Amino acid sequence: MKEPRKIILPESEMPESWYNIAADIPGGLDAPLNPVTGQPVGPQDLAPLFPMALIEQEVSTERHIPIPEEVRDTLLAWRPSPLIRARNLEKLLGTPAHIYYKYEGGSPAGSHKPNTAIPQAYYNKKEGITRLTTETGAGQWGSALSYAGALFGLEVKVYMVKASYEQKPYRKLMMQAWGGSVVPSPSTETAAGRKILAEHPDSLGSLGIAISEAVEEAVGRDDTHYALGSVLNHVMLHQTVIGLETKKQFAMAGEQPDVVIACHGGGSNFAGLAFPFVGDNLTKGTKYRCVAVEPASCPSLTKGVYEYDFGDVAGMTPSMRMYTLGHDFVPPGIHAGGLRYHGASPIVSKLLNLGLIEARSAQQLDCFKAAVDFARSEGFLPAPESSHAIRAAIDEALDAKVKGEKRVIVFGLSGHGHFDLTAYDQYLSGRLENYELPEKEIEASLKVVAKMQPVSVS
Amino acid sequence: MKEPRKIILPESEMPESWYNIAADIPGGLDAPLNPVTGQPVGPQDLAPLFPMALIEQEVSTERHIPIPEEVRDTLLAWRPSPLIRARNLEKLLGTPAHIYYKYEGGSPAGSHKPNTAIPQAYYNKKEGITRLTTETGAGQWGSALSYAGALFGLEVKVYMVKASYEQKPYRKLMMQAWGGSVVPSPSTETAAGRKILAEHPDSLGSLGIAISEAVEEAVGRDDTHYALGSVLNHVMLHQTVIGLETKKQFAMAGEQPDVVIACHGGGSNFAGLAFPFVGDNLTKGTKYRCVAVEPASCPSLTKGVYEYDFGDVAGMTPSMRMYTLGHDFVPPGIHAGGLRYHGASPIVSKLLNLGLIEARSAQQLDCFKAAVDFARSEGFLPAPESSHAIRAAIDEALDAKVKGEKRVIVFGLSGHGHFDLTAYDQYLSGRLENYELPEKEIEASLKVVAKMQPVSVS
Repeated sequence: MKEPRKIILPESEMPESWYNIAADIPGGLDAPLNPVTGQPVGPQDLAPLFPMALIEQEVSTERHIPIPEEVRDTLLAWRPSPLIRARNLEKLLGTPAHIYYKYEGGSPAGSHKPNTAIPQAYYNKKEGITRLTTETGAGQWGSALSYAGALFGLEVKVYMVKASYEQKPYRKLMMQAWGGSVVPSPSTETAAGRKILAEHPDSLGSLGIAISEAVEEAVGRDDTHYALGSVLNHVMLHQTVIGLETKKQFAMAGEQPDVVIACHGGGSNFAGLAFPFVGDNLTKGTKYRCVAVEPASCPSLTKGVYEYDFGDVAGMTPSMRMYTLGHDFVPPGIHAGGLRYHGASPIVSKLLNLGLIEARSAQQLDCFKAAVDFARSEGFLPAPESSHAIRAAIDEALDAKVKGEKRVIVFGLSGHGHFDLTAYDQYLSGRLENYELPEKEIEASLKVVAKMQPVSVS
Repeated sequence: MKEPRKIILPESEMPESWYNIAADIPGGLDAPLNPVTGQPVGPQDLAPLFPMALIEQEVSTERHIPIPEEVRDTLLAWRPSPLIRARNLEKLLGTPAHIYYKYEGGSPAGSHKPNTAIPQAYYNKKEGITRLTTETGAGQWGSALSYAGALFGLEVKVYMVKASYEQKPYRKLMMQAWGGSVVPSPSTETAAGRKILAEHPDSLGSLGIAISEAVEEAVGRDDTHYALGSVLNHVMLHQTVIGLETKKQFAMAGEQPDVVIACHGGGSNFAGLAFPFVGDNLTKGTKYRCVAVEPASCPSLTKGVYEYDFGDVAGMTPSMRMYTLGHDFVPPGIHAGGLRYHGASPIVSKLLNLGLIEARSAQQLDCFKAAVDFARSEGFLPAPESSHAIRAAIDEALDAKVKGEKRVIVFGLSGHGHFDLTAYDQYLSGRLENYELPEKEIEASLKVVAKMQPVSVS
């Protein structure tokens, strides 16, 4: 029989539980610390921001956490997502490797983000919350939450980094089409925003400022919670549907991946695809190589330190033990906006620190070349974030070619690039550049981190 | 067991043949006529524009035409497309009706257009052609052909209506990302374009002019053919994979549609979904109601005449018997650019004339309201074209509610609206208007049609 072009799971095979890798991590996780007291953060510290169900997931060590029926039913609008064999790309590369991609761009918001936006909206709604605030940079997360809010009847307010608000009007309009209200950040609606504007009236904002605004508004209103699209444990958890499906799909295809590749910013996309495979390595003795790929210009995993640091720029969030470039590190303006984060998921960080996963970085131009090769052979136009995974997958396939190996590669195509076409235009017309990161910049921001380590860890 | 959220066909169930309704149309089809001689058009007349395989399909009366393996394999990147139960929309409407939608927005180009772009590129490639020209208005078709060209190694040149070229830069960039070259029309590259520019240097172009330019270039070069995204019989044929899949999916769901709804511009989207159902009505005695929905401001099917008319404005194409508003009718600038066509598919026209299908029209504001209701309940953001089908589906569901009927409705969601967000913005901010079409305008253009009827038909 002909090898299938893609592997489609029936609805009945969509996972009924999320996989919680915290159950299997050797030594467990280090607790986040209260930014003021330096003491471990308890559920009550998080209650103004998140519903109890999510706080429980954040600290749970249960291996399997059931997906509520209503969440599952909503995810089924586009899940299980397809696992597609990139046969045209294989041919283009002339590689004996088999390349597969798990395509998350078919969701209504166009990326993997709704996998967590839907359950976050659901749990908040269930606990009587009527409004959610969040921040967004490039707009993927704000879109996903606006979509989820529309479905569950929650008001959604998105603080969008002003630079993106002005440069990416389509993402803003998409959020508004779903009923989300979008405010350019810094705004006059919060004390944090007003403070910035008083000092820098022309500020174009940053993710750090936008987080501060969204958190401030959520803390100040009883009807309002805050939602985060990456980094936290419960977000990683929700994304594991991706990898759980992928495992089933490989069983159907009758082969197993040697390498599992995903791009890494805050960690949710990588976690979603890779954690179920890492879990098998931990509990079943499999040896999947799991590779996180980050931008060379924002190399948290490959050039950062594994220390306690704040999740935001202003230091309002708990400090978490993670690979970080320092919370006041400002990444250059690459087009993969979703990967511009100074830190990393604490779980991903722990796994890397234990040597259980690999990390590598890629330059912007190499990623765009990979994205264009992919689009012109396979069809789907990838988001700049996803192009990092494609770059690494192609490199693995070329390495397999040199070594004459039939390597089986799977990568996460986390989103489409429909709102990133100006970046493609810049690349194709030769106007795009790599960013060389001055070592001094990292050194400086790492010094700040070194000063804030608790006595118990060091 | 719980009713499924969506029905997914395995790859093995993707149709192996297209359905050619010409085999079953009572009385057959009226031949197209040569614009100069008034005589029926023969294969040799079409040879400068199309490969012989497509010309054969254009005139074939075989009921089933096999899909070449390479075409099928390429379509499998996103096909079979899902049939999704719009349970949230049903709940919003409080209707006993079951509403399903067949979602074609998941293709790489974001609409149903690649279903024909892929086989057209394939057959041209196979007959030694290395370049394709085409025209595009809103850009859906130009995107689909650029994508197909990239996969089959064909150069693609798209004459894009200048108004769209300037207003929809993202669609243009998408075509370029796939390697297509895009020229604003009227251009200086053809005699037709230069003539227009000499008379109207500021012309923003029209689909009619762009067709003339694309045809002129194809006729003038041996290595180049022309590709059309709608109207012609072979295009309708290629789209029938949509309806063939839908029939299988309803069999899996254990129910049958009472009403099949699709928007109608040139006819390819309607044909794709509806023809396999109409075919069953003709050969198996089923009674599916099949409804074509067009814009109230471009009402070819509902206010046009069934006469011979040209496919383009300049009268360079054969004249075809179809419902038409007259080839010099200029539709108002509604956002559903893909439905702005003066004529209609000759096959769709014949079916309507025989009373075998229904047609209705919808106003722009009513369609956008339907699209927003859909996006906020089901998630996917529809193209303005597709919103016409949603409008009619909602109206059917509300009618079923009034009558207390469990009506089963299926509509075609032919594409996503990611590149139409400014239209949503205009609607949501109250800046969008309906277009009232002056009856006089239609009367005037119909007079031109009346003058050109051949003696044999009247």
